Amino acid sequence: MIVVKIGGSEGVNLDAVCTDAAALSKSGSRLVIVHGGSHATNTLSQQLGHPAKFITSPSGHASRRTDRKTLDIFQMACGLMNQAIVERLQSRGINAIGLSGLDGRLWEGERKTAIRAIEDGRTVIIRDDFTGTVDRVNVALLHLLLEAGYTPVLAPPAISTANEPINVDADRAAAQTAAALRADSLLLLSNVKGLLRSFPDETSLIPTVARDAIEEFAQFAEGRMKKKVLGAGEALQAGVRRVIIGDARIEQPISRALDGAGTVFQ
Amino acid sequence: MIVVKIGGSEGVNLDAVCTDAAALSKSGSRLVIVHGGSHATNTLSQQLGHPAKFITSPSGHASRRTDRKTLDIFQMACGLMNQAIVERLQSRGINAIGLSGLDGRLWEGERKTAIRAIEDGRTVIIRDDFTGTVDRVNVALLHLLLEAGYTPVLAPPAISTANEPINVDADRAAAQTAAALRADSLLLLSNVKGLLRSFPDETSLIPTVARDAIEEFAQFAEGRMKKKVLGAGEALQAGVRRVIIGDARIEQPISRALDGAGTVFQ
Repeated sequence: MIVVKIGGSEGVNLDAVCTDAAALSKSGSRLVIVHGGSHATNTLSQQLGHPAKFITSPSGHASRRTDRKTLDIFQMACGLMNQAIVERLQSRGINAIGLSGLDGRLWEGERKTAIRAIEDGRTVIIRDDFTGTVDRVNVALLHLLLEAGYTPVLAPPAISTANEPINVDADRAAAQTAAALRADSLLLLSNVKGLLRSFPDETSLIPTVARDAIEEFAQFAEGRMKKKVLGAGEALQAGVRRVIIGDARIEQPISRALDGAGTVFQ
Repeated sequence: MIVVKIGGSEGVNLDAVCTDAAALSKSGSRLVIVHGGSHATNTLSQQLGHPAKFITSPSGHASRRTDRKTLDIFQMACGLMNQAIVERLQSRGINAIGLSGLDGRLWEGERKTAIRAIEDGRTVIIRDDFTGTVDRVNVALLHLLLEAGYTPVLAPPAISTANEPINVDADRAAAQTAAALRADSLLLLSNVKGLLRSFPDETSLIPTVARDAIEEFAQFAEGRMKKKVLGAGEALQAGVRRVIIGDARIEQPISRALDGAGTVFQ
């Protein structure tokens, strides 16, 4: 079993990912696809006159301010990307099914009911934010679909224990999914070659990271790469054999990552 | 088995529909929910600066002009309504799963590759429109989910035999679904009491229509009601025991329709 997380940023070659996924699937690999919608949410938010806002936690971590209106936009952006992937897989002969974390309570977790953020140098508490983490994956539903020959394509939001949609990080949701499925490999593919020692210099790619050295290497992660390294560590800890952070801008991005291109954590 | 199609127009009480669906489901009824997104598509199209357009066929039938950009907007609008229903059912203890017609090739049909339309009194041919009809329903997927305890919530678009998303009428897709599932009842619930002899006078409600008199009663259908009457006829012909066009603005809209409120076709 291989869990493939596809980033949505510019440069990602969705056609190449889906062509490769279809070829692997036809040769017997079981795949689960995961994606987010952060980039598309920013664009759609702008178009709908509700521009994206980000908040900074006291520890310096940035995250999307997700009020209920942003949540609607996030659901539409993730949903459209989901269906774009399903359409591409269907046209390549793969019977894909798109699901959000709400569908069948696929991804369940706790909503953060009070978020501390730094605004103008002061700490404020935000209570109407819809964010959280995935604590449980409905593995039975994924097995039901996989065994019937379907390829699941999964996207945020998740569902809270109080039945609200919650914005969750798709890299970490993919890590939780790989862990719950006891996947052999988790691939985190985006518009970078892998973890770089000197971001953005791609010649400084770190080819391998041993599982007991992840904390040491986490210092090299910039921006969104931090969540990927965090997810990699969580997945390995939970029993996934290896995690590869790789490039989705190239042809055969899944096969290349499985062959070790990118940064391999194991 | 009961197939419930919910309209998306103003006045429809989504909370009442979901509360009633949950109660019926808990008391042992098997439900499949279907909805469209026509009204929401109009609003979102306007907000995104790509206002809805409608074309008129030579026979006088109006339909949405669905270019590829409109299709994206339609997918987002239907998707958001889908997740709003899934969220409401989940919060009422029903493990709902939202699916489009692309997911698992749930609704497959032919795309109309050339559409004749009347523009300024002349007939023109439109070739870049993404519309069609549902010819096949993936009944196996619905049974797989129902037997595992999930409640499917289905929305357009469908998928063409050439793997394109196609805008299909949700009333007729619901009729095809009810027929394929050999449902006992198909309910078409919206913001009207039923088929009216003198639209919009609600005191002129037609309580029953015998299956062999549908053509005769079709003359009373105005606007979107035409598709509902057409769908009712198709469903009965295909073996559904009865079709009820009923009111979704009231409390317990499903139970009331099952009790015969609205226009009963059988």
